[in-house]
Amino acid sequence: MNEPLRDTRTLVQQLRDRIAELIRDEGLGPGDKLPTEAQLTQRFKISRPALREALKLLEQDDVIYVEHGRGRFVSAMAAVQVERPITVFESVTELARHYGYTPVNKVLSIADEPADKTVAEKLQLAAGARVVRLERLRLEGDEPILYCIDYIPRSIIPVRLYDIDWSGSLLALLEEYKQRPRMSAATVSAVLLPDEVVERHDLRGFGPALLIREVCFNAAGTPVTYAIDYHRGSHFSFSFVRK
Amino acid sequence: MNEPLRDTRTLVQQLRDRIAELIRDEGLGPGDKLPTEAQLTQRFKISRPALREALKLLEQDDVIYVEHGRGRFVSAMAAVQVERPITVFESVTELARHYGYTPVNKVLSIADEPADKTVAEKLQLAAGARVVRLERLRLEGDEPILYCIDYIPRSIIPVRLYDIDWSGSLLALLEEYKQRPRMSAATVSAVLLPDEVVERHDLRGFGPALLIREVCFNAAGTPVTYAIDYHRGSHFSFSFVRK
Repeated sequence: MNEPLRDTRTLVQQLRDRIAELIRDEGLGPGDKLPTEAQLTQRFKISRPALREALKLLEQDDVIYVEHGRGRFVSAMAAVQVERPITVFESVTELARHYGYTPVNKVLSIADEPADKTVAEKLQLAAGARVVRLERLRLEGDEPILYCIDYIPRSIIPVRLYDIDWSGSLLALLEEYKQRPRMSAATVSAVLLPDEVVERHDLRGFGPALLIREVCFNAAGTPVTYAIDYHRGSHFSFSFVRK
Repeated sequence: MNEPLRDTRTLVQQLRDRIAELIRDEGLGPGDKLPTEAQLTQRFKISRPALREALKLLEQDDVIYVEHGRGRFVSAMAAVQVERPITVFESVTELARHYGYTPVNKVLSIADEPADKTVAEKLQLAAGARVVRLERLRLEGDEPILYCIDYIPRSIIPVRLYDIDWSGSLLALLEEYKQRPRMSAATVSAVLLPDEVVERHDLRGFGPALLIREVCFNAAGTPVTYAIDYHRGSHFSFSFVRK
């Protein structure tokens, strides 16, 4: 529990997850009081402002509530809080790992091409601006579980495309160029894979897919990726809270 | 714009939506200052605490940000904010209306039956406790667009089942019994309709469905409905923000 926080998510988000874990692990129930700020900063070895940001996220998610002058308490909704909500921004690699998958990432194609109308609009580029189009398939064992297309403004990538290993994390790559996405605007729908994709990549039997289309923004609010991810229906479901 | 707020959503949520509309309608962009609290309370004829709650929701959704001592501003993310996020709790009827549909609601079956293991667990009932099982289909014109099953603890409904018009809003009905759901914990996945449902109700051609399973809680945090909704993939997609 006290190992340093050092994966790729931001400190505040990791801290939120850690405190949620603490609530679960210590069996805190609705109405139970959370440890004090002093106890939490000491436990997680973080600053008071970072802690307050993390607690604010938990309050927003209705995991805890504040009674002014009395402290922070576990809410009635905490028990139904979901572990990996659809609203958490993370890479497809992180996502798959959280589902217990350790997929192999196959690069199907990589191209430098002019953006079509939709892609230009999503990435707020001029019509015809160059984009990198990356097409990948994730396999869990023998089973294809994710078919993904990513568009990235060509201007972000200062090197030749074939000098990059595209089978790795796209977020880590964008981080290198100081363009790490921080959040996204997404839509989810249920579809079948396009026929030509099924044929070209031999994806018969993939079945219904949860399609998430997602524009990812860097810290300045500039779009840096447009991702189109087909999650195999038999392998993924996402959780969320509605209020 | 100044018509009274009086649909079934809570005042604060309606107010949030109204302020978001105002941002859109007045063409406010990233970095633009929001009207003052005084201007907003006057405009919407609501109290300062209700306004602050609504502004807090907008801050949580990254539509606005606060600079202490300077006021509230439209965030870079406001432009990509989505109109009906998947995280907004609303009835299927309200949802369909927001998509521009005016569906007819067909009651396929209504039964008083013992809860199976899953249903008992979702509704936090003892095994074998009685539940109402309501099976409905929404048609837009000739097209089925939603196939829905709802489970409600029998103890909530104090009257005979056949004395109720089940084609109406379930939320309104639960409201009558002081059990209106306020929020829910849900999962979304992509599936095909179960074969026996397709056959029994002649739903060939429905195609891939966005399946949302949702436990709805009243204000006290007690589950009052377990809903299983198959949204026809060709007719629905949901939006959300990830961060």
